[in-house]
Amino acid sequence: MKTYRKELWFNVPTRRGFINITPQAEASLRESGVKEGLVLCNAMHITASVFINDDEPGLHHDYEAWLEKLAPREPVSQYRHNVGEDNADAHMKRQIMGREVVVAVTEGKLDLGPWEQIFYGEFDGRRKKRALIKIIGE
Amino acid sequence: MKTYRKELWFNVPTRRGFINITPQAEASLRESGVKEGLVLCNAMHITASVFINDDEPGLHHDYEAWLEKLAPREPVSQYRHNVGEDNADAHMKRQIMGREVVVAVTEGKLDLGPWEQIFYGEFDGRRKKRALIKIIGE
Amino acid sequence: MKTYRKELWFNVPTRRGFINITPQAEASLRESGVKEGLVLCNAMHITASVFINDDEPGLHHDYEAWLEKLAPREPVSQYRHNVGEDNADAHMKRQIMGREVVVAVTEGKLDLGPWEQIFYGEFDGRRKKRALIKIIGE
Repeated sequence: MKTYRKELWFNVPTRRGFINITPQAEASLRESGVKEGLVLCNAMHITASVFINDDEPGLHHDYEAWLEKLAPREPVSQYRHNVGEDNADAHMKRQIMGREVVVAVTEGKLDLGPWEQIFYGEFDGRRKKRALIKIIGE
Repeated sequence: MKTYRKELWFNVPTRRGFINITPQAEASLRESGVKEGLVLCNAMHITASVFINDDEPGLHHDYEAWLEKLAPREPVSQYRHNVGEDNADAHMKRQIMGREVVVAVTEGKLDLGPWEQIFYGEFDGRRKKRALIKIIGE
Repeated sequence: MKTYRKELWFNVPTRRGFINITPQAEASLRESGVKEGLVLCNAMHITASVFINDDEPGLHHDYEAWLEKLAPREPVSQYRHNVGEDNADAHMKRQIMGREVVVAVTEGKLDLGPWEQIFYGEFDGRRKKRALIKIIGE
């Protein structure tokens, strides 16, 4: 069995943002030499997500507005977590979008559907944070 | 290490619907010959889900109403994604229900709890779409 | 390839609660002898979650209030599932928080970010229920 590990680092300049990390996942898979197996890709922070959806700016805008409606940031005082913090909403947005994705590897490629793209979703940015890629297979 | 891959195809005649795919997952596992390992089952489309829950029609009706409340389809114009599309709500419903499940394989069987059933959740149907089953183990 | 399986049993005395199961996941990993691979940890019940987030009581209180807002328990009669049952809301809360996590194993340790802790999330307790830990790797 082969295994491979890589950290991807981000420093999103805004509080929230989505970054397409499919190219990095593909590059990691090539480096790993794995032809058949699984790729785990997860946020290593609890106010961020890794998810799969469409690379379409209108949709990303819609996600942003929708998440703010379901888990509003303001008023910050509505959350008990916000004692010395102001990011409780980010912990909630992350649960809706998810922590991780697991992607099949088939014949040396990410086995994705036609529109599937992997994103790092930041909900409390403006600092260095990271995601993990772990690949197992042979 | 053994690996196995299968696509499941669907053509849900309505916009939304839930299909129990546990029998197909079990059949795939038998075909794979894997006795110990993991099964990944994921939607290959970004307006559909694979999730695990109860096979109970009342609950499925409740999910339908609940998802429509959290991510309403109408008015279609509320979403920027809906330029030439009308399915932005489906991208949101899918994030709540999730893209994928990973199920343990133990002694040649899906290692599920007593009421766990695997579903394909369609949120933008009336066309051919698919899910992926990938099994690794030995 | 090595594989390992363990069930964790719970009997949460209240309807809802969060239990940090990171120590049990670490102990299972040590017992498994796996140095590189993946850990799957999933609820075996469809009204419970396994998720990763912060071990901070204020945040847990916020999750509780937030989930009740998104998927309210009362009135119980609003859900068709509640015929002889009263837990439809628990099936919804569980979908938001998720069924499972997959965690990388690197150099014999759970490859978690600095604040990542694994929780069993109970949404319909006051009875014996369980989660599954399955580890594969070498």
